[in-house]
Amino acid sequence: MSSKSHLTYGARASNHPNALARKLFQVAEAKKSNVTISADVTTTQELLDLCDQLGPHVAVVKTHIDILSDFSEKTIAGLQALAVKHNFLIFEDRKFIDIGNTVQKQYHGGALRISEWAHIINCSVLPGEGIVEALAQTAAARDFTYGPDRGLLILAEMTSKGSLATGPYTVSSVDYARKYKEFVVGFVSTRALSEIDSSASSPSPEEDFVVFTTGVNLSSKGDKLGQQYQTPQSAIARGADFIIAGRGIYTAPDPLDAVQRYQREGWEAYLARVQ
Amino acid sequence: MSSKSHLTYGARASNHPNALARKLFQVAEAKKSNVTISADVTTTQELLDLCDQLGPHVAVVKTHIDILSDFSEKTIAGLQALAVKHNFLIFEDRKFIDIGNTVQKQYHGGALRISEWAHIINCSVLPGEGIVEALAQTAAARDFTYGPDRGLLILAEMTSKGSLATGPYTVSSVDYARKYKEFVVGFVSTRALSEIDSSASSPSPEEDFVVFTTGVNLSSKGDKLGQQYQTPQSAIARGADFIIAGRGIYTAPDPLDAVQRYQREGWEAYLARVQ
Repeated sequence: MSSKSHLTYGARASNHPNALARKLFQVAEAKKSNVTISADVTTTQELLDLCDQLGPHVAVVKTHIDILSDFSEKTIAGLQALAVKHNFLIFEDRKFIDIGNTVQKQYHGGALRISEWAHIINCSVLPGEGIVEALAQTAAARDFTYGPDRGLLILAEMTSKGSLATGPYTVSSVDYARKYKEFVVGFVSTRALSEIDSSASSPSPEEDFVVFTTGVNLSSKGDKLGQQYQTPQSAIARGADFIIAGRGIYTAPDPLDAVQRYQREGWEAYLARVQ
Repeated sequence: MSSKSHLTYGARASNHPNALARKLFQVAEAKKSNVTISADVTTTQELLDLCDQLGPHVAVVKTHIDILSDFSEKTIAGLQALAVKHNFLIFEDRKFIDIGNTVQKQYHGGALRISEWAHIINCSVLPGEGIVEALAQTAAARDFTYGPDRGLLILAEMTSKGSLATGPYTVSSVDYARKYKEFVVGFVSTRALSEIDSSASSPSPEEDFVVFTTGVNLSSKGDKLGQQYQTPQSAIARGADFIIAGRGIYTAPDPLDAVQRYQREGWEAYLARVQ
């Protein structure tokens, strides 16, 4: 459990040095939602419809922008307008995983124009420290015009069956997050990681990384390709600050009803944790 | 060293059960080249110019298609035409790393239309077995019209500083390659991995995975973001069947002269190995 997990989002927002982390907590508090919708539809129209319908009930919309068959300027403009209309942040789940020189070009200036519209990105530390250093360097460059409204999550653990994002991999994720904490706002993980104390780094008293947990589903235990699910309650009790749900919401018979259920259960679990 | 590393590309082509592996070896033999050019330029025109200029001297062109600022139909059509003109294969270095349900959409039908034009793709096994199973399933589906001319490399090791693609991660890479060998043609790794004998799998006498080694450079030892280089000779002596070089060629004062130097040195190192 994070040393800050017992604090309210509001309290964490007021003390956090990172602008994007503050924004995340403020949005959650304002909307009484810690839900991230994993919007894994495959056309721009479906994506925009989904964001417009469910946007009022989520804090973050998570995209895999490259699964859209018709990605274009219209996708970007539409997403950005809805993010303003419904006050949500956009998380492109690109899972960068390459050498520093390459990820800089993939993040900023490439075909998918990720730096322009994604407030949050993520990366794997499989390649070593260079990937985190390179992304942080790009965001800190003088000609990077998107300012402090950008941040990186490190993919420290995965929820799929047989995940190898464990042990030394997870420890290195925490080490690099601490080293590059100006750009790294937190983790995609199954639990808070603030107790990790390694030969390279130790938790500081003010450390407050934001935890996103994937694979949250109220009615299914998994899929046929290795995904494994848990509930909002169990994820939040383990330290999730934001719960990521996809098919549990958008393939439900009534997605609007479903997202409100995840919102309510996620919020109650959060209230129980901070009491 | 692979049990097949001492055989000529021609001999390996004639015995290999996988159509794409046969094609790779045939192209190498026909062009007397085991060079893969890592074409990390950022506009379609630069990419097509580079492929047209260097195409006659390489077996494979490796792309990061998402770093292009102007990816379009023209990119795909141009690449495909040049692949035919110069008899090279295309390897999209996407490094898929997600749950099975997501990578299927990223590979086939998405914004970058990877299944249409990339003969070779690669993935990390960090998420577990599901990612390999899912990609193999997509390629084996009845409505997948690109036939046997497609294959997957598993990213079993990386050349960047502090890479965590080692130990149990590399062993799992080999286990999954053996289990899904109809679609997995080989590895991106720093050496042949055929001696790995794990609790899940053992090498069979006919096993013949193709080894691609990145970070090959004749004149530099590394960059400022953690990339580390080795020479064509050292890579091939360790089991590389195809050597991947990027900046060593395309940023050289005379790229055509440079690619011919890599072609010659790579081929001589191969001849020395099979003698």
